[in-house]
Amino acid sequence: MKIKFCYISIGFSVAVVLSLLSCVEGVESTEQQSLSDEHPSLVLTSAGVAEIKSNLGQVPLFDQTLEAVTKEVDAEITNGIEVPVPKDLAGGYTHERHKSNFFIMQKAGVLFQITGEEKYAVYVRDMLLAYAEMWPTIGKHPAERSYARGKIFWQCLNDANWLVYAGQGYDCIYDWLDELTREKLNKELFRPYAEYVSVENPQFFNRIHNHSTWGNAAVGMIGLVMDDEELINWALYGLDIQVAGDIVKDNDGGDIQPEGQKEAGFLAQIDHSFSPDGYYTEGPYYQRYAMYPFLIFAQALANKRPELEILGYRDGLLIKAIYALINQTNASGEFFPINDSQKGMSLSSRELVNAVSMAYAFGGNDSGLLSIVENQGRVPLNNAGMAAAKGVAEGKAKKFEYKSMELTDGAKGDEGAIGIIRSEDLTLMMKYAKHGMGHGHFDRLGFLLYDETGEVIQDYGAARWVNIEHKDGGGYLKENHSWAKETVAHNTLVVDKDSHFDGNVREADKTSGTPYYFLGEGSVQIASAKEMNAYDGIEMQRTMAVVDVEELENPLVIDLFSVQAPEGTRYDLPLYYMGEFMSSNQQFETNKDLTPMGTNDGYQHLWAEAQTGLVGDVFSMTWFNGKKFYTVTSAVESGDEMILTRIGATDPNFNLRRDPGLIHRRKGGNTLFASLYETHGSYDYASERPINSFTSIANLEILHQSEAYAVVGFKLKSGEYYQFAFSLANDEETSTHAVATSKERLEWNGIYDFRIF
Amino acid sequence: MKIKFCYISIGFSVAVVLSLLSCVEGVESTEQQSLSDEHPSLVLTSAGVAEIKSNLGQVPLFDQTLEAVTKEVDAEITNGIEVPVPKDLAGGYTHERHKSNFFIMQKAGVLFQITGEEKYAVYVRDMLLAYAEMWPTIGKHPAERSYARGKIFWQCLNDANWLVYAGQGYDCIYDWLDELTREKLNKELFRPYAEYVSVENPQFFNRIHNHSTWGNAAVGMIGLVMDDEELINWALYGLDIQVAGDIVKDNDGGDIQPEGQKEAGFLAQIDHSFSPDGYYTEGPYYQRYAMYPFLIFAQALANKRPELEILGYRDGLLIKAIYALINQTNASGEFFPINDSQKGMSLSSRELVNAVSMAYAFGGNDSGLLSIVENQGRVPLNNAGMAAAKGVAEGKAKKFEYKSMELTDGAKGDEGAIGIIRSEDLTLMMKYAKHGMGHGHFDRLGFLLYDETGEVIQDYGAARWVNIEHKDGGGYLKENHSWAKETVAHNTLVVDKDSHFDGNVREADKTSGTPYYFLGEGSVQIASAKEMNAYDGIEMQRTMAVVDVEELENPLVIDLFSVQAPEGTRYDLPLYYMGEFMSSNQQFETNKDLTPMGTNDGYQHLWAEAQTGLVGDVFSMTWFNGKKFYTVTSAVESGDEMILTRIGATDPNFNLRRDPGLIHRRKGGNTLFASLYETHGSYDYASERPINSFTSIANLEILHQSEAYAVVGFKLKSGEYYQFAFSLANDEETSTHAVATSKERLEWNGIYDFRIF
Repeated sequence: MKIKFCYISIGFSVAVVLSLLSCVEGVESTEQQSLSDEHPSLVLTSAGVAEIKSNLGQVPLFDQTLEAVTKEVDAEITNGIEVPVPKDLAGGYTHERHKSNFFIMQKAGVLFQITGEEKYAVYVRDMLLAYAEMWPTIGKHPAERSYARGKIFWQCLNDANWLVYAGQGYDCIYDWLDELTREKLNKELFRPYAEYVSVENPQFFNRIHNHSTWGNAAVGMIGLVMDDEELINWALYGLDIQVAGDIVKDNDGGDIQPEGQKEAGFLAQIDHSFSPDGYYTEGPYYQRYAMYPFLIFAQALANKRPELEILGYRDGLLIKAIYALINQTNASGEFFPINDSQKGMSLSSRELVNAVSMAYAFGGNDSGLLSIVENQGRVPLNNAGMAAAKGVAEGKAKKFEYKSMELTDGAKGDEGAIGIIRSEDLTLMMKYAKHGMGHGHFDRLGFLLYDETGEVIQDYGAARWVNIEHKDGGGYLKENHSWAKETVAHNTLVVDKDSHFDGNVREADKTSGTPYYFLGEGSVQIASAKEMNAYDGIEMQRTMAVVDVEELENPLVIDLFSVQAPEGTRYDLPLYYMGEFMSSNQQFETNKDLTPMGTNDGYQHLWAEAQTGLVGDVFSMTWFNGKKFYTVTSAVESGDEMILTRIGATDPNFNLRRDPGLIHRRKGGNTLFASLYETHGSYDYASERPINSFTSIANLEILHQSEAYAVVGFKLKSGEYYQFAFSLANDEETSTHAVATSKERLEWNGIYDFRIF
Repeated sequence: MKIKFCYISIGFSVAVVLSLLSCVEGVESTEQQSLSDEHPSLVLTSAGVAEIKSNLGQVPLFDQTLEAVTKEVDAEITNGIEVPVPKDLAGGYTHERHKSNFFIMQKAGVLFQITGEEKYAVYVRDMLLAYAEMWPTIGKHPAERSYARGKIFWQCLNDANWLVYAGQGYDCIYDWLDELTREKLNKELFRPYAEYVSVENPQFFNRIHNHSTWGNAAVGMIGLVMDDEELINWALYGLDIQVAGDIVKDNDGGDIQPEGQKEAGFLAQIDHSFSPDGYYTEGPYYQRYAMYPFLIFAQALANKRPELEILGYRDGLLIKAIYALINQTNASGEFFPINDSQKGMSLSSRELVNAVSMAYAFGGNDSGLLSIVENQGRVPLNNAGMAAAKGVAEGKAKKFEYKSMELTDGAKGDEGAIGIIRSEDLTLMMKYAKHGMGHGHFDRLGFLLYDETGEVIQDYGAARWVNIEHKDGGGYLKENHSWAKETVAHNTLVVDKDSHFDGNVREADKTSGTPYYFLGEGSVQIASAKEMNAYDGIEMQRTMAVVDVEELENPLVIDLFSVQAPEGTRYDLPLYYMGEFMSSNQQFETNKDLTPMGTNDGYQHLWAEAQTGLVGDVFSMTWFNGKKFYTVTSAVESGDEMILTRIGATDPNFNLRRDPGLIHRRKGGNTLFASLYETHGSYDYASERPINSFTSIANLEILHQSEAYAVVGFKLKSGEYYQFAFSLANDEETSTHAVATSKERLEWNGIYDFRIF
């Protein structure tokens, strides 16, 4: 039973006098429970430390991690404490130094607890005192580009990172410190620091956003350490502060206070950031980033505020969110790079090292998670990490079973979804979710495809080299807007060379894709979704089926992109294949000189290397990625063109990769784009023997297209003929359908029909 | 003691009547030793088989290989025998089927010997009988593109491959066959087959070339199996046949009979194909390919003609050649892709699996080789393989020590060389060898650079996808001539936009680079060489030093390219860096549209993406390859330009990779190009933490340049100043030098001087 109550804060120490009114939800009693006085009690507890000590030397993965961390921290201690006056952007010296400092303080604190060696406590104390000395002497960070400038770093976000980690280190030495030092640090460093990232920057703290999650966790955790009830309440329930009217957007173009968004604080973050399936609307790259404060603060709350039952909150949502993350990875454990996302971020990141062990320890000891822990090769130095390391040491690890699934988006799970289909070595992901706020891309109904070798059809990801200072300080590059977010940078339909929603984030945020049908098991798996809002007056529906075809070595992808639009509409359907063009059944004409394909909406970054007007009934192109062969086969309509593109035009700072693409261009009204994606064969550079390097598909034809149905047939070179029919308008499992195709009258039951002739 | 003698062949069974006169060298007696009647006796011997049998089940690497081969052969037996009428080019069905057939016959023969299971013998026999049936019914292969068309394959070379392997399979079942079958195969298949690839195609058989090595081995080995003295003599000593006057070049543009080349046959191949250091003038890709027939025929000769002492021939040259191959690899065991070479070919190829075990068994049980055998993960199923596998099983494997070395080229070792410098994780290779005949590239004084992550400065390699039929049947693409062989495709100087030797192979073959100085150990390692012939009236000398600089995390490469040429000469010095441009101290101007940089000599394949007229004293550019950072720093002369290029213009079939390059352009007379290549820092996509991403070099200046000396100085950002001086004209170790620099009068002893100020 949830009880709401309000309280008035008093004794406010910041210069700005604010009247605070926070609405509190989710606490079982109007009486605040008294906090334990014992430290550590955030992530480590004294009982937990005892348990860890008793297992030392017996659990290899934990011991190895401990050894590595000890080595790292000892090297830093030898190196000496450096607390420079803040100056640089991400990637620069002062930024990286302060970042390193907070990681090391957290680790040194843990080492002090586990080993009892005072040198670690001394190191943390002295570094904190150095920060306490500096804090009153510095104003806002000199770099002015952030919507919420920090003091130690260029943005509050990084200041909050610092507090989340440093707070843990502080917790570990809290009881060891003398009273005077403790008081000094509490009053001169931590309380003002916590105020800076909360009440002094409500535009940062009081949103539903990963930035605020960090802010909430930072303030809440240091509040738990200091037994500062006020901070804890701000963290859990948000501030009742109006953000100044001139701060309306963050640096990524996201709204600070979207319409209708009233709640704030950590519990509201859990309520609003995730769908019931644990999907995070910004996508897995940012979910990974946000998960650390969610989980580490949750661990602290579970220890110090057990009555909140935070890990059971929203039906165990935080643990579900970890599974959602794991399920959004390819065969190498790398996250799908949808929305703003740097490729290569993976299950081996420190956030996931923490998360996966935590999911194991608190989520029912799922032995499938242990294989991921094994691959990570390290564990967090806490009780969850010890539990996971013990599981591995006891040989309990099993292969994690990746299954097909649809992950809904939106707090209630009714705002679109992503569909993930796994079939043998293939992973197909189609996106028909929410836009994803400031980090979203205009990619409704886009897809990406992997096999065991890596990317087959890529999503570009973000135009950014995170933290690499050469590249605009490591932040987002202007090509992230002008290229990476635009529709033409994705594997989805561009109408009239214009991005979805005219490239307007606010418009895009208002709606989501519409899941139509998802079938995630069996020899025919299907994801189908509609998009009614991206272009005025145009209805789009994409249906992607991954089917087992006995004669083929791998599952085959059928892609049916159906559009209802006025006559004369110009379509471009890009396909960002990864690898080297091998051959096509059509004769491309290469361009002697290259000019950009347009001036805006991403086209300014594309060269057309070659093009052809399509002849005959079918287009076929094979490419090779160094290990395997791939063929796209597309049905041709009269007047269709294909363009072989290359990214890299209008790129003065060489910020874009020179990746290839293929654009299917068509002019028409209601239409259906039908394609097959086939992965086949292999090649090895040492044996130089190609196997099955040619497509097995002889032909693909559209047998019927209408608003209600799409029916295609394809013939294999070995003679078999397959037919796939799909009901676009009636998704009742019990429906019956009859349609005239160009060959016959076809009848079937249910949403789809796949048959061989 | 060597005795020469001549003999007259009689009883010649081919239609073409030829008078054969072969000059025999290297045999100790005028009496031919009678050949053993026992089989197998080529690679396996009955004593050897007994030894293998007695070790089965006790030597893991051998057992694993045996299991894998058994599985492979059993699958083929189940699949049934297919001997199709020849039709296709490489990559096509009939080609790949026949290729598979000969590999499987060799393996099945071995399995019959080791396991005694008759099914393997039956399989080999039946397949050979199928070939015997087909042989008289087929003429030359229908594809007409080869200078020496085969019958089973499009070129004699592949027919010879077949015979080398099938002959081994035949040897293994020879004694098991009934007399009639044996006679049938001898007379109706093998003798005519051997004649086809020798006397009927002397333009293939009678050269000094890897093709002929295969031909010699093929004919010699089947001669040894059948006790056919005539074939053995042709193989060892060549044919005294004039090649028809109209066949003067092979498909790669190589001369069939270069001037002065009289000898032929296997021993002449050993005499002329290798330098005394075991370097093969076509480079490691082709050496790898040629080594198999060299070594397998040598093993057979060692067994059946021990009096030849073939493994001791030319001071143990064949074993040296294996070491030369191993030393021409990067950290992943991949060969330097100089000349026509497909990248990725490596120590894990079947040829090297055979070679490395053989070098171990016959070359003194070098335990360093065993670490390579371990990496290969398999051994040849013969006594050398058993010896190596036993060595591994006994834990004798040690890390192979890659050392710096100069490998001379030319039969006498006096026709140029390649210099290989190893320093920590860096490998630098500079080429100043012979051209390499038809497979040579116009790349005098070119270099390539690796670190532990792979290519830092690449050599493009060949424009070819070997055996991948999509790409012109898997053969060399026309862009191999128009791009990959041209000078501008390499990291070396282009004068007046013209390739070395005007792109004329015959001219290039006449001369070699001139080794000047090589120092392969210590904290300063140097390779320096001159090239006097590539351009009329122009003298080039490149000096590359790899130096330890205490303040830097990795060794630093100093590159001094000195030229003596008339005023007004136009220079382009390309640098094919691998990775993404990060930043430069100069302001590049990108081109809105792209046009090819020229019409010939490779420039037609380059886009200029951006360029800049250089200002100031120094050019600096940093790139990133996904794991590490790299910076080139170059001294600037007034009027210098830099061009950022991209490969891919004028490429109608998408045959070229879109790799980046940097061209240093200068117009002048005598000049010195001075650059530093620095590898630094790291980045990991999961931690997103860049380390040391900026260059440590503050500045580079030329202190003196003349025909006799090059002196450069460079300053680190940390303040240290280093100076490198080199004597270009006097390579006496005892020489003393004095030179006026722009700073001071500098004196030193010896060829170089490297000092810190």
